[in-house]
Amino acid sequence: MWSAMSETTSTAPTSADVARLAGVSRATVSYVLNDTAGGRVSEKTRLRVRAAADQLGYVPHAAARSLRAGHTGLVLMAAPEITFGPLFNEFFAELRAGLRDHGYTAVLYGTRGDLSGREIARAWAELRPTAVITGVTDDLTPEGVEILRRSGTRAVLSLAERPVPGAHSLLLDQSAVGATAGEHLVARGHRAIGVVMPTDATLRRFSEPRLAGVRQAAAGARVEPLALDYTESSAAELAARWRSLGLTGLFCYNDEYAALIQAAFQDAGIAVPTDAALVGADDLMLARVLRPRLTSVHVSLPEGIALADLIDRLIREPDTPPETYRIGDATITVRDSS
Amino acid sequence: MWSAMSETTSTAPTSADVARLAGVSRATVSYVLNDTAGGRVSEKTRLRVRAAADQLGYVPHAAARSLRAGHTGLVLMAAPEITFGPLFNEFFAELRAGLRDHGYTAVLYGTRGDLSGREIARAWAELRPTAVITGVTDDLTPEGVEILRRSGTRAVLSLAERPVPGAHSLLLDQSAVGATAGEHLVARGHRAIGVVMPTDATLRRFSEPRLAGVRQAAAGARVEPLALDYTESSAAELAARWRSLGLTGLFCYNDEYAALIQAAFQDAGIAVPTDAALVGADDLMLARVLRPRLTSVHVSLPEGIALADLIDRLIREPDTPPETYRIGDATITVRDSS
Repeated sequence: MWSAMSETTSTAPTSADVARLAGVSRATVSYVLNDTAGGRVSEKTRLRVRAAADQLGYVPHAAARSLRAGHTGLVLMAAPEITFGPLFNEFFAELRAGLRDHGYTAVLYGTRGDLSGREIARAWAELRPTAVITGVTDDLTPEGVEILRRSGTRAVLSLAERPVPGAHSLLLDQSAVGATAGEHLVARGHRAIGVVMPTDATLRRFSEPRLAGVRQAAAGARVEPLALDYTESSAAELAARWRSLGLTGLFCYNDEYAALIQAAFQDAGIAVPTDAALVGADDLMLARVLRPRLTSVHVSLPEGIALADLIDRLIREPDTPPETYRIGDATITVRDSS
Repeated sequence: MWSAMSETTSTAPTSADVARLAGVSRATVSYVLNDTAGGRVSEKTRLRVRAAADQLGYVPHAAARSLRAGHTGLVLMAAPEITFGPLFNEFFAELRAGLRDHGYTAVLYGTRGDLSGREIARAWAELRPTAVITGVTDDLTPEGVEILRRSGTRAVLSLAERPVPGAHSLLLDQSAVGATAGEHLVARGHRAIGVVMPTDATLRRFSEPRLAGVRQAAAGARVEPLALDYTESSAAELAARWRSLGLTGLFCYNDEYAALIQAAFQDAGIAVPTDAALVGADDLMLARVLRPRLTSVHVSLPEGIALADLIDRLIREPDTPPETYRIGDATITVRDSS
């Protein structure tokens, strides 16, 4: 089988093939196809080289070109393999578009959490990315930053709740999400507040600081964490014991969990907001299609275009000392559920 | 600024540095770090080389290694920059995990639809992927397949509604989704059926075959396409004119559109299912948290693990003639909305 493969790869046209067909030197092919010809190559020759490359289907190798340009132009967005909500999907799509406008190729690299910080950084470094941006993950370590920098990565950014030494940081303050929900419930007079804690372990990095934020904002009030699976039966159980809990307000982790709970409460005859004031987070379209409409914490992520501009600047100035940006302003969108 | 950059890249350790520090030849470094030493290198030397590589932070270059192994191990998943639903997110995450178990590095490449088939294939080919799988996009053309094959890509797969000549095809039959909804509504006695057509142009590739499927299944019945923005006001407008349309059943494109419509119908006093029988698609958790619970067309995507096995086989047997697999079985999950 593997011999069949080398047959396939041996037919890949090279710049030498292009040079032969165009009747020019390989250096000329390189000048023309990498736009580094300056005034050295006539327009006529240029056209001949391009026509030969087209005819043969010759494609320069990004990694080979990187030896000349000094970089691959690859921007690796590394994020854990959890199901992102629409909010993050849209953010990533915008960022990709912005990076492409700057001439970079952005790809998303899913991580699974079973490699050490060193191993995962080496896996990234093997692709020789020009920049790496890691999203909501602990995969990036100071040693990982060092490995990437040494292998030529010019900018390493982390989008996380805590800064990573050596990397630029986009700090996403999850406790502010909980604090915003807590402040709202306290302002509405609630003194006994439940906080939904998804049992899904991949969400702990969000749920724990959100809980801490509620506790901080609702100092003096009773705050009760409530474990919940993302299933109808788990929500029905919560509804069944709601009255015995003695709580009046509930921060539901996010809008999707809130939708699940609101349906279970409706089935159990628990009136929202009178028997239970519900607050979601992420302010999805979902919050507006529920009845009663859901109060939700709105989180503003940075514009993908602005972030692409920042990444481009940090690539162009690779010796910039680590910079820190606070992102994700939390505000409350009050609707009918609280 | 660019001079600062070359300073950074010039410090990247090379295999020559590793050889010097370990006191061995570069060939020995290559044997050890690429696990191709066989019996030629003693365990002691092996350990010394690895220690030197670790100390220097040396990482082999995937592209350089590809010259030896014959491939980069990179699997490019190219998909348009539309917001995928949870269904596709989960599918991609599973596929990535399966490919990693086979030793490949899978990355997601977002496409924007502003490049020609040739241009986009050249952009992909520059990364020298071992395999390319394109999802629900027209970006892959027969010429693109040719460009990829010539530059060494061993397997090109398309996940789409139509096969692409030269590529392996995973055919996703969107008309079956509409047909399944149509059959259900007809079986429930509906003879005047609306079909929601999102105005979002990126969804046309799904909505048009879905409409055709409804028409086919409901031959003899009246089938009326209804344009809808994904906004509360557009849904309210549809609700306001619902009674004048003379329709009794509505296929809502997917569960998210159905949720939007069900809320607007509830606000307008249109009873579901008696005044309007609603059917969604994708069978999301959302369908279960709506009241009444939403009838939805369930689409089974292939298991990511199974698809990773298939891709691995096609990479190992690159001369396999194009194969076609039908995926996405559609079945109806009947709940209370229809």
